[in-house]
Amino acid sequence: MGFTLEDLARYVDGRVEGDGQCEITHVATLQAAGKGDISFLSNRSYRRFLRDTGAAAVILTEGDREFCQTNCLVVDNPYVAFARISALLNPAPTHTPGIHASAVIADDASISSTASIGAHVTIGSGARVGENVHIGPGCVIGDAVSVADESFIHSNVTLCRGVTLGKRCLVHPGAVIGSDGFGIANDNGVWVKVPQIGSVVVGDDVEIGANTTIDRGALDDTVIEDGVKLDNQIQVAHNVRIGAHTAIAGCVGIAGSAVIGKHCAIGGGAVVLGHLQITDHVQITAMSLVTRSIREPGVYSSGTPLQENDEWRKNFARFRRLDDMARRLNRLEKKINETDKQE
Amino acid sequence: MGFTLEDLARYVDGRVEGDGQCEITHVATLQAAGKGDISFLSNRSYRRFLRDTGAAAVILTEGDREFCQTNCLVVDNPYVAFARISALLNPAPTHTPGIHASAVIADDASISSTASIGAHVTIGSGARVGENVHIGPGCVIGDAVSVADESFIHSNVTLCRGVTLGKRCLVHPGAVIGSDGFGIANDNGVWVKVPQIGSVVVGDDVEIGANTTIDRGALDDTVIEDGVKLDNQIQVAHNVRIGAHTAIAGCVGIAGSAVIGKHCAIGGGAVVLGHLQITDHVQITAMSLVTRSIREPGVYSSGTPLQENDEWRKNFARFRRLDDMARRLNRLEKKINETDKQE
Amino acid sequence: MGFTLEDLARYVDGRVEGDGQCEITHVATLQAAGKGDISFLSNRSYRRFLRDTGAAAVILTEGDREFCQTNCLVVDNPYVAFARISALLNPAPTHTPGIHASAVIADDASISSTASIGAHVTIGSGARVGENVHIGPGCVIGDAVSVADESFIHSNVTLCRGVTLGKRCLVHPGAVIGSDGFGIANDNGVWVKVPQIGSVVVGDDVEIGANTTIDRGALDDTVIEDGVKLDNQIQVAHNVRIGAHTAIAGCVGIAGSAVIGKHCAIGGGAVVLGHLQITDHVQITAMSLVTRSIREPGVYSSGTPLQENDEWRKNFARFRRLDDMARRLNRLEKKINETDKQE
Repeated sequence: MGFTLEDLARYVDGRVEGDGQCEITHVATLQAAGKGDISFLSNRSYRRFLRDTGAAAVILTEGDREFCQTNCLVVDNPYVAFARISALLNPAPTHTPGIHASAVIADDASISSTASIGAHVTIGSGARVGENVHIGPGCVIGDAVSVADESFIHSNVTLCRGVTLGKRCLVHPGAVIGSDGFGIANDNGVWVKVPQIGSVVVGDDVEIGANTTIDRGALDDTVIEDGVKLDNQIQVAHNVRIGAHTAIAGCVGIAGSAVIGKHCAIGGGAVVLGHLQITDHVQITAMSLVTRSIREPGVYSSGTPLQENDEWRKNFARFRRLDDMARRLNRLEKKINETDKQE
Repeated sequence: MGFTLEDLARYVDGRVEGDGQCEITHVATLQAAGKGDISFLSNRSYRRFLRDTGAAAVILTEGDREFCQTNCLVVDNPYVAFARISALLNPAPTHTPGIHASAVIADDASISSTASIGAHVTIGSGARVGENVHIGPGCVIGDAVSVADESFIHSNVTLCRGVTLGKRCLVHPGAVIGSDGFGIANDNGVWVKVPQIGSVVVGDDVEIGANTTIDRGALDDTVIEDGVKLDNQIQVAHNVRIGAHTAIAGCVGIAGSAVIGKHCAIGGGAVVLGHLQITDHVQITAMSLVTRSIREPGVYSSGTPLQENDEWRKNFARFRRLDDMARRLNRLEKKINETDKQE
Repeated sequence: MGFTLEDLARYVDGRVEGDGQCEITHVATLQAAGKGDISFLSNRSYRRFLRDTGAAAVILTEGDREFCQTNCLVVDNPYVAFARISALLNPAPTHTPGIHASAVIADDASISSTASIGAHVTIGSGARVGENVHIGPGCVIGDAVSVADESFIHSNVTLCRGVTLGKRCLVHPGAVIGSDGFGIANDNGVWVKVPQIGSVVVGDDVEIGANTTIDRGALDDTVIEDGVKLDNQIQVAHNVRIGAHTAIAGCVGIAGSAVIGKHCAIGGGAVVLGHLQITDHVQITAMSLVTRSIREPGVYSSGTPLQENDEWRKNFARFRRLDDMARRLNRLEKKINETDKQE
């Protein structure tokens, strides 16, 4: 399955510099690329690999063209063009429609005849599985769950009772959607469970990473809007709302009822406290703790620098008395200023 | 299935103000509630929704009664009363007793005739499953595991060999209990595995969140006492002991042999180092690193504030030389004080 | 199944002090040990338990011998010797070779006749399972996966398409290896998926913890070298390389394309940012954020101390203006020094 560079340029609306007839069959990194491979440059720090790349062609911007020794595919956004071309050259594996003999499907579940249901899958009462949906081996699809057309659910995923998934969603292995929120009321020291009777509503084109968990709402629903991308091992608590096209990196925790805007980006290991609101177009850097609502777009951070342990220990110890340091500095300044005035 | 407000008041030992005969069928938030719905107010910041709520009745304290325009159910602890009423109005789904035809059960496992065992479940040799226990689809119950009466195990859970679960436990999808502790000994650079021959003992009324992991002990057992509530994605290492009625939020990590007291609360993303002891009634705020034992009840924290990235970078850089700043401040103070004395 | 202390000494190349003929059948902690038990001392803080231990024998160093009242097995590294002896006394459970009737195996998969395949396992097309491999109940082994001899895969594990596992690997329940990396390109606010066409290559003697996730490479492979030990709930992103004999504690996140050296140790909850390089023999303490490459062996840390919440709040607030404090200190110093010169 090959394309000419000219074909690909037309596909991504780019311009060829060099031999438009050269055949492209695979994608590869600049360092590993050889005959028939197309590569890309989107991160300036990799520009040094341009000179010696064995790639048949490289996708890059006009500004980087002069550094390239081979055929170029010039576009505005090389990484997006590369993503599209790679998807063209590496189509997702197709699955034969049908239900595996070992799957256990409730009588009143509605499964599209074009869906493919893997081995050892369990599908509950009243569930609906749309066209061309794939459900991988070992998945458990609870009662009244709805999975819309073209969604792809990998292995060992659990979708709990009543969860709704939009079109073209991609759910990776081990993810759990619709587990009970952590709702507990303290009755003189003993915790009483608060029933979690909301659900989870996931929009279209959402990707949910391996072993990520999304809790169902306590009363209203937890909502993941269209185009949201969640990496692995993320915890989304009950009644959280994540705005459209927001991307969240691995190991992030989002506490209950937090509302995150559209087009946000949250770095790995960050934690967002409950009931906060984050406006659109906010970036949170890795491992930050979001302790307050964020009303203005921008980049936000917390944390301290990595240091050699001996150095760090000294600073660490001083932090313990930072308030005292600040007070002493204030006093000293005041004293000096008074002395100045007296003189 | 409805109750009068009077019925509910009797059930939670509260007092009706208004029409005790009004019919209650559902629970809802103040904002969403309509005819037949009962809501609650336990967080002062939601008091503004009281005026316009469409709820048939609201559970609240005596102090909030004057702000309420509809029927009231007055109690000391509205959230606990709400939890009880919600559980009454939303009973957990019941499962027909019996073993699904696809389940694989060892000949010598003992399964109560009132238990319900889902599709694709595997139960090992010598395992014991008590009365009214539910084990969801895809669970793996290892050899010699014991699950006591009334416990509910959701889908795709793994209980490893020998693990013991108390009564009325609730285990959410993807949880793993009894995996090997991380015991490795360094033999001149190469790690040698230390067999993990302890087990995990879980008390009564324990809730364990989705994809949470609890390791088996190295020699003695890992112990989770009665009434402990664990949120999702928590890691509990070998030989940890968590005291009764302690609640731990999502993404917390507890290192080996840490002992956590009773009635503690640990915020999301916190980490407790190994071999530490935390006394009863301690609260740890989100994302704190517990680096030392805690002997006194109270609230404990670590970390730095979230800031706009440009501001944060400057402070971040200064932290690197905080010890130096402290020394310079000391010197300056000394100098000024000496000058004072000389004058 | 018992051994004399003399047998064990020979097995670990140690020296008996006391009765070499005493029979040893089990291992136990110093505190719990009784007749027939062997214990060990490797952490000085446990030395106080030596005097009253009921152990038949204790593994310890020459230096600790004088504090011991019972038979001694003297070695250089007691913890390693203990690990070996414990493995001898507690052999891993064996599994009868064969494929469970409920397993679903692709026709062209190659399964060794000595392998044991559990209930409800799914094995894809072209997969290869080596000699004496155990695959636990509920595992999903994708197309073209290869699991080498003597590896042990616990329950509900997913190995995605094309993943390669070395010999004697140990994979704990719920782990996911080979899920898609988090590769997304931003096309005017909408995320476009970048196909993840690399795989994961895991070396020999690697241990992978419960619910740990390792993503497949975007173009090249993600690589876990020989002897690496990963605890639970770790997230390893695409194209990461982890060097041989490195050990990583629970809840760590490693972002894309990070390269970690050999013989490193990373503490629980730490995060390593993407595209960084960490040299060999580096230790990162718990919950540190690695924001830059590390070129020198050593111990590295970040973070602030745990404090009583009231104290911490004050310091926390001051951190917000640390840069300002530093500037003011500079000015004050300059002023004082100038005054000095004038005098």
